[in-house]
Amino acid sequence: MVYIGVDLGGTNIAVGVVNEKWEVVAQASTKTLASRPYQEIIRDMAVCADKALSQLGLTHNDVNSIGVGIPGAADEEGNVIFCTNLGWKDIPLRTELQKYINKPVYVGNDATVAALAESYAGVSAGCSSSIFLTLGTGVGGGIIINGKPWNGVHGVASELGHTILVAGGEPCSCGNRGCLERYTSATAIIRMAKEAVKENPDCAIMKKAGGNPDRINAKLVIDAAKEKDPVGMKVFDQYTDYLAMACNNIIQFMDPDMVVLGGGVSYAGDFLVEAVRAKVPNYILNKTLPYSRIELATLRNEAGIIGAALLGAAQ
Amino acid sequence: MVYIGVDLGGTNIAVGVVNEKWEVVAQASTKTLASRPYQEIIRDMAVCADKALSQLGLTHNDVNSIGVGIPGAADEEGNVIFCTNLGWKDIPLRTELQKYINKPVYVGNDATVAALAESYAGVSAGCSSSIFLTLGTGVGGGIIINGKPWNGVHGVASELGHTILVAGGEPCSCGNRGCLERYTSATAIIRMAKEAVKENPDCAIMKKAGGNPDRINAKLVIDAAKEKDPVGMKVFDQYTDYLAMACNNIIQFMDPDMVVLGGGVSYAGDFLVEAVRAKVPNYILNKTLPYSRIELATLRNEAGIIGAALLGAAQ
Repeated sequence: MVYIGVDLGGTNIAVGVVNEKWEVVAQASTKTLASRPYQEIIRDMAVCADKALSQLGLTHNDVNSIGVGIPGAADEEGNVIFCTNLGWKDIPLRTELQKYINKPVYVGNDATVAALAESYAGVSAGCSSSIFLTLGTGVGGGIIINGKPWNGVHGVASELGHTILVAGGEPCSCGNRGCLERYTSATAIIRMAKEAVKENPDCAIMKKAGGNPDRINAKLVIDAAKEKDPVGMKVFDQYTDYLAMACNNIIQFMDPDMVVLGGGVSYAGDFLVEAVRAKVPNYILNKTLPYSRIELATLRNEAGIIGAALLGAAQ
Repeated sequence: MVYIGVDLGGTNIAVGVVNEKWEVVAQASTKTLASRPYQEIIRDMAVCADKALSQLGLTHNDVNSIGVGIPGAADEEGNVIFCTNLGWKDIPLRTELQKYINKPVYVGNDATVAALAESYAGVSAGCSSSIFLTLGTGVGGGIIINGKPWNGVHGVASELGHTILVAGGEPCSCGNRGCLERYTSATAIIRMAKEAVKENPDCAIMKKAGGNPDRINAKLVIDAAKEKDPVGMKVFDQYTDYLAMACNNIIQFMDPDMVVLGGGVSYAGDFLVEAVRAKVPNYILNKTLPYSRIELATLRNEAGIIGAALLGAAQ
């Protein structure tokens, strides 16, 4: 038997066939074209699934279940509660998808799905509990407890990016101030760097950005820090301080086996995770007791498909 | 069958017999005298349990299990990992207590135990998941997930008071800065009030404190706010803002059925919880979706005994 995993994004729909070793063995994808009626988008999920299955000579009879990871929240009945960047609200995803493929359909948040993928096939495999942070444009969270995704009672848990880290701090797109994602996202690195280069217009960051602060991105700043540029190192130090505080908050609250760092910023690799690990003891309460491991995600782009496929297996 | 609940504090050991309706039906207590060898303190737990049982004409044969709530952390084997204000570290509580009463012994953190009590016999009865905040000198947390206490993988979860709410903020006794308990404890109300009365030496708070800022306590400040004293209202507004942010962080992270406010500050009653409820929508991300109820704890002093007794029943 195989599992179908659908990674629904604002730009692409990526669909994969996943085997029982949690490997993606066939893939198909298409553009989301998010402004279309949801029925068309969901029909295209089924079309891609059929394409991927046919690559392997498989049919619906070989499919155990279908999982869909969405950039939003879903309920236990497979309805999308909301999905902001697709403009979806109360969409009956399960019912609609079952019109094409009559198999069990599960729907989950994309960061939760990535957390699940890592906990079966990635860095947190073997951990009964783990908490995943996607460090991208924003910050998403995924929670695995006793081997299962925790979506909360109303389906809106793990919005770690919108817990408050600096009361009264930087304004957030959500209307709040001081949200964790204002300090630990790629966007936060860019903001901190733009601030720092004002007084240091000749630094390596500005050179890499061709003298234009609007061309600063997170990778460029971290690369400057890796090259020991003082301004880059200062920004990186500031950023990893906040990220260590975020890890502290996760550890003090839930004490999981592992905190997993994923998303674009995590591609900075050991340079990032080693800096965070060195700083976490500055914050945690019980410094002499064992605490959660802090690790980098390993599955990268495939996490979305594998984790979605796993939604059925992890029930 | 009955359950024995032991509420171990720095000052008193309170032991109760709890029936299957989760009512305390007999009690006995003694001084902790915390500087004694732990063996003596644990022996006194058994002595008190026997006293309470004898009031009902019961023997060890009638006892299902024994639970002990401690102001610290314990592991799954019933060992105390640490218990700061008793100076305990790695104490084999289960083994030692079973020398006197040979029944299953469970050990848990006191705030977790209070959360468990509320979830069986108090305000959160019927909720599968709830998160409890004790608003006292410090701030403790208790987490119930799927009807069971969540202690974390290393036994040190739910230290909500030491999650960071104001990065770089007020120094905390733990050595960190900006911990949630620096803004949401009774101690925080006193600090905020002492600051506010400097410019208002004739306010109602100072009158209630007999003109001596060192006599300000949390109840006195909240009473002043209830009486519409402008300085009291200002401090109460500031305090409930932070408490609403704390609720936001719990809701965004775990999305439980209910957030339960307990501890001394919660005795301010509806005046407190209504102010917090009114402010939570200022912070949460999905303002139009259902979210966790925010309620006052109802069991007060008995929560420690009932919750400890429940440690066995909730396994």
